[in-house]
Amino acid sequence: MESLNIQFDEQGLVPAIVQDVRTGEVLMLAYMNETSLNKTIETKRTWFYSRSREELWQKGATSGNEQHVKQLYYDCDQDALLVKVEQTGPACHTGEKSCFYREVDLGEESTVDPQIVERVFESIQDRRDH
Amino acid sequence: MESLNIQFDEQGLVPAIVQDVRTGEVLMLAYMNETSLNKTIETKRTWFYSRSREELWQKGATSGNEQHVKQLYYDCDQDALLVKVEQTGPACHTGEKSCFYREVDLGEESTVDPQIVERVFESIQDRRDH
Repeated sequence: MESLNIQFDEQGLVPAIVQDVRTGEVLMLAYMNETSLNKTIETKRTWFYSRSREELWQKGATSGNEQHVKQLYYDCDQDALLVKVEQTGPACHTGEKSCFYREVDLGEESTVDPQIVERVFESIQDRRDH
Repeated sequence: MESLNIQFDEQGLVPAIVQDVRTGEVLMLAYMNETSLNKTIETKRTWFYSRSREELWQKGATSGNEQHVKQLYYDCDQDALLVKVEQTGPACHTGEKSCFYREVDLGEESTVDPQIVERVFESIQDRRDH
Protein backbone atom coordinates (compact mmCIF):
# COMPACT_ATOMS: atom_id res chain seq x y z
CA MET A 1 0.00 0.00 0.00
CA GLU A 2 3.00 2.31 0.51
CA SER A 3 3.41 2.75 -3.23
CA LEU A 4 -0.28 3.53 -3.68
CA ASN A 5 -0.75 7.27 -3.47
CA ILE A 6 -4.50 7.69 -3.72
CA GLN A 7 -5.76 11.26 -3.50
CA PHE A 8 -8.60 11.25 -1.00
CA ASP A 9 -10.82 14.34 -1.05
CA GLU A 10 -11.26 16.83 1.80
CA GLN A 11 -13.65 14.36 3.44
CA GLY A 12 -11.06 11.59 3.16
CA LEU A 13 -13.01 9.77 0.47
CA VAL A 14 -12.43 8.47 -3.04
CA PRO A 15 -15.19 7.34 -5.44
CA ALA A 16 -15.07 3.65 -6.37
CA ILE A 17 -16.78 2.35 -9.48
CA VAL A 18 -17.80 -1.29 -9.14
CA GLN A 19 -17.94 -3.29 -12.36
CA ASP A 20 -18.91 -6.91 -12.99
CA VAL A 21 -15.64 -8.56 -14.08
CA ARG A 22 -17.46 -11.05 -16.30
CA THR A 23 -20.08 -8.96 -18.09
CA GLY A 24 -18.51 -5.50 -17.86
CA GLU A 25 -21.75 -4.10 -16.43
CA VAL A 26 -21.25 -1.12 -14.12
CA LEU A 27 -22.99 -2.14 -10.90
CA MET A 28 -22.68 0.81 -8.53
CA LEU A 29 -20.68 3.79 -7.35
CA ALA A 30 -19.74 4.14 -3.68
CA TYR A 31 -17.05 5.82 -1.62
CA MET A 32 -14.03 4.42 0.15
CA ASN A 33 -11.86 6.01 2.81
CA GLU A 34 -8.31 4.79 3.43
CA THR A 35 -9.40 2.18 5.98
CA SER A 36 -12.08 0.70 3.73
CA LEU A 37 -9.66 0.64 0.80
CA ASN A 38 -7.13 -1.25 2.90
CA LYS A 39 -9.79 -3.68 4.10
CA THR A 40 -10.94 -4.19 0.49
CA ILE A 41 -7.40 -5.11 -0.56
CA GLU A 42 -6.81 -7.34 2.47
CA THR A 43 -10.11 -9.23 2.42
CA LYS A 44 -10.78 -9.17 -1.36
CA ARG A 45 -14.31 -8.10 -0.50
CA THR A 46 -15.59 -4.56 -1.08
CA TRP A 47 -15.71 -2.25 1.93
CA PHE A 48 -17.06 1.28 1.66
CA TYR A 49 -17.62 4.32 3.83
CA SER A 50 -21.19 5.48 4.24
CA ARG A 51 -21.39 9.26 4.28
CA SER A 52 -24.92 9.24 5.72
CA ARG A 53 -24.31 6.66 8.44
CA GLU A 54 -20.69 7.74 8.94
CA GLU A 55 -19.42 4.19 9.19
CA LEU A 56 -17.58 1.47 7.30
CA TRP A 57 -19.71 -1.19 5.71
CA GLN A 58 -18.96 -4.37 3.87
CA LYS A 59 -21.10 -4.87 0.78
CA GLY A 60 -23.27 -7.92 1.34
CA ALA A 61 -22.59 -8.19 5.08
CA THR A 62 -26.32 -8.15 5.77
CA SER A 63 -27.82 -9.00 2.35
CA GLY A 64 -25.35 -11.74 1.48
CA ASN A 65 -24.80 -10.08 -1.89
CA GLU A 66 -21.03 -9.89 -1.56
CA GLN A 67 -18.56 -8.62 -4.10
CA HIS A 68 -15.40 -10.68 -4.57
CA VAL A 69 -12.66 -8.37 -5.75
CA LYS A 70 -10.77 -9.67 -8.77
CA GLN A 71 -9.03 -6.55 -10.04
CA LEU A 72 -8.51 -3.04 -8.70
CA TYR A 73 -7.48 -0.03 -10.80
CA TYR A 74 -6.89 3.66 -10.10
CA ASP A 75 -7.10 6.49 -12.56
CA CYS A 76 -4.55 8.94 -14.00
CA ASP A 77 -5.22 11.55 -11.30
CA GLN A 78 -5.25 8.86 -8.60
CA ASP A 79 -8.56 10.18 -7.33
CA ALA A 80 -10.94 7.47 -8.57
CA LEU A 81 -11.00 3.68 -8.27
CA LEU A 82 -12.34 0.94 -10.50
CA VAL A 83 -13.09 -2.34 -8.74
CA LYS A 84 -13.79 -5.40 -10.87
CA VAL A 85 -15.77 -7.96 -8.94
CA GLU A 86 -17.67 -11.18 -9.04
CA GLN A 87 -21.07 -10.14 -7.72
CA THR A 88 -23.23 -12.50 -5.69
CA GLY A 89 -26.91 -11.69 -6.31
CA PRO A 90 -28.06 -8.19 -7.21
CA ALA A 91 -25.73 -5.27 -6.47
CA CYS A 92 -28.51 -2.75 -5.81
CA HIS A 93 -30.48 -2.60 -2.57
CA THR A 94 -33.63 -2.25 -4.69
CA GLY A 95 -33.14 -5.79 -5.97
CA GLU A 96 -32.01 -4.59 -9.39
CA LYS A 97 -28.82 -6.14 -10.72
CA SER A 98 -27.16 -2.74 -11.17
CA CYS A 99 -27.90 0.54 -9.40
CA PHE A 100 -27.95 2.20 -12.83
CA TYR A 101 -31.29 0.74 -13.88
CA ARG A 102 -32.97 4.00 -14.92
CA GLU A 103 -32.25 5.60 -18.26
CA VAL A 104 -32.63 9.22 -19.29
CA ASP A 105 -34.60 9.71 -22.49
CA LEU A 106 -32.20 11.43 -24.87
CA GLY A 107 -34.81 11.92 -27.57
CA GLU A 108 -34.92 10.53 -31.08
CA GLU A 109 -31.49 11.62 -32.15
CA SER A 110 -29.67 9.20 -29.87
CA THR A 111 -31.21 6.14 -31.48
CA VAL A 112 -30.81 7.31 -35.09
CA ASP A 113 -27.23 7.22 -36.30
CA PRO A 114 -26.67 10.47 -38.25
CA GLN A 115 -24.14 8.64 -40.42
CA ILE A 116 -26.53 5.84 -41.36
CA VAL A 117 -26.95 7.05 -44.98
CA GLU A 118 -23.21 7.20 -45.40
CA ARG A 119 -22.81 3.73 -43.96
CA VAL A 120 -25.48 2.25 -46.23
CA PHE A 121 -23.80 3.91 -49.20
CA GLU A 122 -20.41 2.48 -48.20
CA SER A 123 -21.95 -0.94 -47.74
CA ILE A 124 -23.54 -0.87 -51.22
CA GLN A 125 -20.30 0.39 -52.75
CA ASP A 126 -18.36 -2.33 -50.95
CA ARG A 127 -20.65 -5.07 -52.25
CA ARG A 128 -20.44 -3.72 -55.80
CA ASP A 129 -16.64 -3.61 -55.67
CA HIS A 130 -15.98 -7.01 -54.03
CA MET B 1 -35.28 17.43 -17.67
CA GLU B 2 -38.06 18.43 -15.24
CA SER B 3 -38.66 14.82 -14.29
CA LEU B 4 -34.95 14.22 -13.65
CA ASN B 5 -34.25 14.86 -9.99
CA ILE B 6 -30.49 14.42 -9.74
CA GLN B 7 -29.02 14.97 -6.30
CA PHE B 8 -26.06 17.29 -6.75
CA ASP B 9 -23.67 17.46 -3.80
CA GLU B 10 -22.93 20.55 -1.69
CA GLN B 11 -20.61 21.76 -4.47
CA GLY B 12 -23.38 21.32 -7.04
CA LEU B 13 -21.66 18.30 -8.64
CA VAL B 14 -22.50 14.71 -9.48
CA PRO B 15 -19.93 12.05 -10.45
CA ALA B 16 -20.32 10.70 -13.98
CA ILE B 17 -18.85 7.36 -15.01
CA VAL B 18 -18.04 7.24 -18.71
CA GLN B 19 -18.18 3.80 -20.32
CA ASP B 20 -17.46 2.69 -23.88
CA VAL B 21 -20.87 1.64 -25.22
CA ARG B 22 -19.33 -0.97 -27.50
CA THR B 23 -16.67 -2.67 -25.37
CA GLY B 24 -18.03 -1.95 -21.89
CA GLU B 25 -14.65 -0.57 -20.84
CA VAL B 26 -14.84 2.10 -18.13
CA LEU B 27 -13.00 5.08 -19.61
CA MET B 28 -13.02 7.79 -16.94
CA LEU B 29 -14.79 9.42 -14.04
CA ALA B 30 -15.50 13.14 -14.06
CA TYR B 31 -17.97 15.55 -12.51
CA MET B 32 -20.99 17.33 -13.96
CA ASN B 33 -22.92 20.25 -12.57
CA GLU B 34 -26.49 20.95 -13.66
CA THR B 35 -25.41 23.10 -16.59
CA SER B 36 -22.94 20.56 -17.95
CA LEU B 37 -25.51 17.77 -17.54
CA ASN B 38 -28.03 19.80 -19.52
CA LYS B 39 -25.45 20.56 -22.21
CA THR B 40 -24.54 16.86 -22.35
CA ILE B 41 -28.17 15.92 -22.95
CA GLU B 42 -28.73 18.72 -25.49
CA THR B 43 -25.57 18.24 -27.53
CA LYS B 44 -25.08 14.46 -27.08
CA ARG B 45 -21.46 15.23 -26.29
CA THR B 46 -20.00 14.99 -22.78
CA TRP B 47 -19.60 18.22 -20.84
CA PHE B 48 -18.05 18.27 -17.40
CA TYR B 49 -17.22 20.74 -14.66
CA SER B 50 -13.55 21.09 -13.76
CA ARG B 51 -13.15 21.54 -10.00
CA SER B 52 -9.56 22.77 -10.38
CA ARG B 53 -10.18 25.19 -13.24
CA GLU B 54 -13.70 26.02 -12.03
CA GLU B 55 -15.16 25.95 -15.51
CA LEU B 56 -17.23 23.89 -17.90
CA TRP B 57 -15.35 21.87 -20.46
CA GLN B 58 -16.36 19.70 -23.34
CA LYS B 59 -14.45 16.48 -23.58
CA GLY B 60 -12.43 16.53 -26.79
CA ALA B 61 -12.92 20.26 -27.47
CA THR B 62 -9.16 20.72 -27.69
CA SER B 63 -7.89 17.15 -28.21
CA GLY B 64 -10.57 16.12 -30.70
CA ASN B 65 -11.18 13.00 -28.63
CA GLU B 66 -14.91 13.57 -28.29
CA GLN B 67 -17.43 11.35 -26.60
CA HIS B 68 -20.72 10.83 -28.42
CA VAL B 69 -23.39 10.09 -25.83
CA LYS B 70 -25.50 7.06 -26.69
CA GLN B 71 -27.13 6.25 -23.35
CA LEU B 72 -27.39 8.02 -20.00
CA TYR B 73 -28.35 6.35 -16.72
CA TYR B 74 -28.67 7.49 -13.12
CA ASP B 75 -28.45 5.34 -10.03
CA CYS B 76 -30.89 4.35 -7.30
CA ASP B 77 -29.95 7.28 -5.07
CA GLN B 78 -29.93 9.67 -8.04
CA ASP B 79 -26.48 10.88 -7.07
CA ALA B 80 -24.33 9.20 -9.72
CA LEU B 81 -24.48 9.07 -13.53
CA LEU B 82 -23.42 6.46 -16.05
CA VAL B 83 -22.77 7.77 -19.56
CA LYS B 84 -22.36 5.27 -22.37
CA VAL B 85 -20.44 6.79 -25.24
CA GLU B 86 -18.73 6.22 -28.51
CA GLN B 87 -15.21 7.43 -27.82
CA THR B 88 -13.09 9.06 -30.51
CA GLY B 89 -9.41 8.30 -29.82
CA PRO B 90 -8.11 7.75 -26.29
CA ALA B 91 -10.23 8.95 -23.37
CA CYS B 92 -7.28 9.73 -21.10
CA HIS B 93 -5.14 12.85 -21.44
CA THR B 94 -2.08 10.60 -21.00
CA GLY B 95 -2.84 8.95 -24.33
CA GLU B 96 -4.08 5.77 -22.68
CA LYS B 97 -7.41 4.45 -23.91
CA SER B 98 -8.88 4.50 -20.39
CA CYS B 99 -7.88 6.60 -17.37
CA PHE B 100 -7.90 3.39 -15.32
CA TYR B 101 -4.72 1.96 -16.82
CA ARG B 102 -2.90 1.21 -13.56
CA GLU B 103 -3.70 -1.87 -11.55
CA VAL B 104 -3.16 -2.49 -7.85
CA ASP B 105 -1.33 -5.73 -7.10
CA LEU B 106 -3.75 -7.73 -4.99
CA GLY B 107 -1.24 -10.50 -4.33
CA GLU B 108 -1.38 -14.13 -5.38
CA GLU B 109 -4.83 -14.84 -4.07
CA SER B 110 -6.53 -12.67 -6.66
CA THR B 111 -5.26 -14.71 -9.56
CA VAL B 112 -5.81 -18.11 -7.99
CA ASP B 113 -9.45 -19.04 -7.68
CA PRO B 114 -9.92 -20.58 -4.21
CA GLN B 115 -12.72 -22.72 -5.62
CA ILE B 116 -10.61 -24.15 -8.43
CA VAL B 117 -10.34 -27.62 -6.86
CA GLU B 118 -14.09 -27.72 -6.41
CA ARG B 119 -14.63 -26.64 -9.99
CA VAL B 120 -12.24 -29.26 -11.38
CA PHE B 121 -13.98 -31.90 -9.27
CA GLU B 122 -17.39 -30.81 -10.58
CA SER B 123 -16.06 -30.85 -14.14
CA ILE B 124 -14.72 -34.40 -13.79
CA GLN B 125 -17.94 -35.53 -12.15
CA ASP B 126 -19.97 -33.91 -14.92
CA ARG B 127 -17.97 -35.66 -17.64
CA ARG B 128 -18.33 -39.00 -15.88
CA ASP B 129 -22.09 -38.60 -15.54
CA HIS B 130 -22.88 -37.29 -19.05
